[in-house]
Amino acid sequence: MNYKQLVSNIKQKKSFLCVGLDTDYNMLPKFLMETEYPVFEFNKRIVDETAKYVVAYKPNMAFYEILGAAGWINLLMTINYIRERYPDIFIIADAKRSDIGNTSKMYAKAFLGEMNFDAITVNPYMGEDSVTPFLSFENKWVILLALTSNSGASDFQFIKDNETDQKLFELVLRKSQAWGNRENMMYVVGATKAEMLADIRKIVPEHFLLIPGVGAQGGNLEEVAKYGINKQCGLLVNSSRNIIYADATNIFAKVAGEKAYEMQKEMEILLQKYKVI
Amino acid sequence: MNYKQLVSNIKQKKSFLCVGLDTDYNMLPKFLMETEYPVFEFNKRIVDETAKYVVAYKPNMAFYEILGAAGWINLLMTINYIRERYPDIFIIADAKRSDIGNTSKMYAKAFLGEMNFDAITVNPYMGEDSVTPFLSFENKWVILLALTSNSGASDFQFIKDNETDQKLFELVLRKSQAWGNRENMMYVVGATKAEMLADIRKIVPEHFLLIPGVGAQGGNLEEVAKYGINKQCGLLVNSSRNIIYADATNIFAKVAGEKAYEMQKEMEILLQKYKVI
Repeated sequence: MNYKQLVSNIKQKKSFLCVGLDTDYNMLPKFLMETEYPVFEFNKRIVDETAKYVVAYKPNMAFYEILGAAGWINLLMTINYIRERYPDIFIIADAKRSDIGNTSKMYAKAFLGEMNFDAITVNPYMGEDSVTPFLSFENKWVILLALTSNSGASDFQFIKDNETDQKLFELVLRKSQAWGNRENMMYVVGATKAEMLADIRKIVPEHFLLIPGVGAQGGNLEEVAKYGINKQCGLLVNSSRNIIYADATNIFAKVAGEKAYEMQKEMEILLQKYKVI
Repeated sequence: MNYKQLVSNIKQKKSFLCVGLDTDYNMLPKFLMETEYPVFEFNKRIVDETAKYVVAYKPNMAFYEILGAAGWINLLMTINYIRERYPDIFIIADAKRSDIGNTSKMYAKAFLGEMNFDAITVNPYMGEDSVTPFLSFENKWVILLALTSNSGASDFQFIKDNETDQKLFELVLRKSQAWGNRENMMYVVGATKAEMLADIRKIVPEHFLLIPGVGAQGGNLEEVAKYGINKQCGLLVNSSRNIIYADATNIFAKVAGEKAYEMQKEMEILLQKYKVI
């Protein structure tokens, strides 16, 4: 999916919601455990109830890798299901991969080629040649970690470079703009301190930002929009547990749909307020 | 495997060689392509010919993920085969994972629990809570990226922190010593400039260092030992392509065995020179 299509989907659906398909096998409703592909069955039901309110899904690889080969099969079934039924949805592999150039090329082929994700999250620690192999696929995206939402973010991401007087995550934002552009690169920016988005927007005014942690991790949607939104929206806001685990009974998918609808409604108001639509 | 056992294996085998099982499906000898599990068959033959000269194997996940569920099956077969036939071998998942605490816990369970690797490479960018979940498994190890051997290493790993006047990779070495110890944590240190190992040894005198890039990536074994070896060896030196792709015909495994033997002999001389054995 290209930039124009993504923006168009946001405007049409009046939503910049991304739902994290972090499907924990141990938290599945019991009646699904009797099916052959319980993780896929869970995802399928969540997708069917939420698809009209979301522009993106983001399965986190850890939740599939823990199931080994079966996890990959459930994941592929999920991707294929979304592609067939809801072709306007952007699908992100939350994989946080990165390796030396030749090896990153293999990961890129796996996720953006074989598995046909639209985007993959990438860790910047290893620098340019670990990131650029993911940028050579047409209409596919790198979502580079800049500022993460976890407590450990303060260990290294805020150290200030002697030479440029910039913090590490700011350097990541600046340097990587030479590797890609707003058409093939986004950034993960943790929303625990939404006012930081104002400074980040000075460095990357046009790029999409993927904001994790609105919901269970404590971010606030209004604040995020206030400081982070741009003329084309430029935001994907992720919610995982607050939506997919809103209910643990047989009506979990219906309740997830209601939660997604609530968020879409909030987003619609914000998109209007900031004149994106 | 614990620290004592690893050191004992190194002394007994007179080797600190790690072989990277970066098995590229497209580079397999033709006769293996007709088998049901060609990647496993390749690995099995490599392992049988090299096991007596090596203390560790390190499959890189990218080469398996590109094959989807089949890749995971071939990987698991490889791990199980090594465990059964050569129980004294240390097996490293070169996965370079890291995520927020809860998700890192899932990766840890997958690699150190379910798949029963001895160790996993971890990316430090997301800080403490992304690393510590991997440290809660008895006799299992984190191998934290500090200084990598690729060209992109210079983008961020060398920025100098205003406050402490230390480079990012040095901060990673220092801070992480509060998270683990020499019994459960090693560091990836690129060998492209071996003399840097002397400074690194001042920060982490006792920890094991995993040195990639001796061989195809241009490092030099004698220099690595000169600057990096400690009283208990403290080194695992990896070679991948130089060994597993030394020959592309039906005798590839035999040639790989000869290459591993050559490296073991060099290592034996160095272990004697530096009085480890």
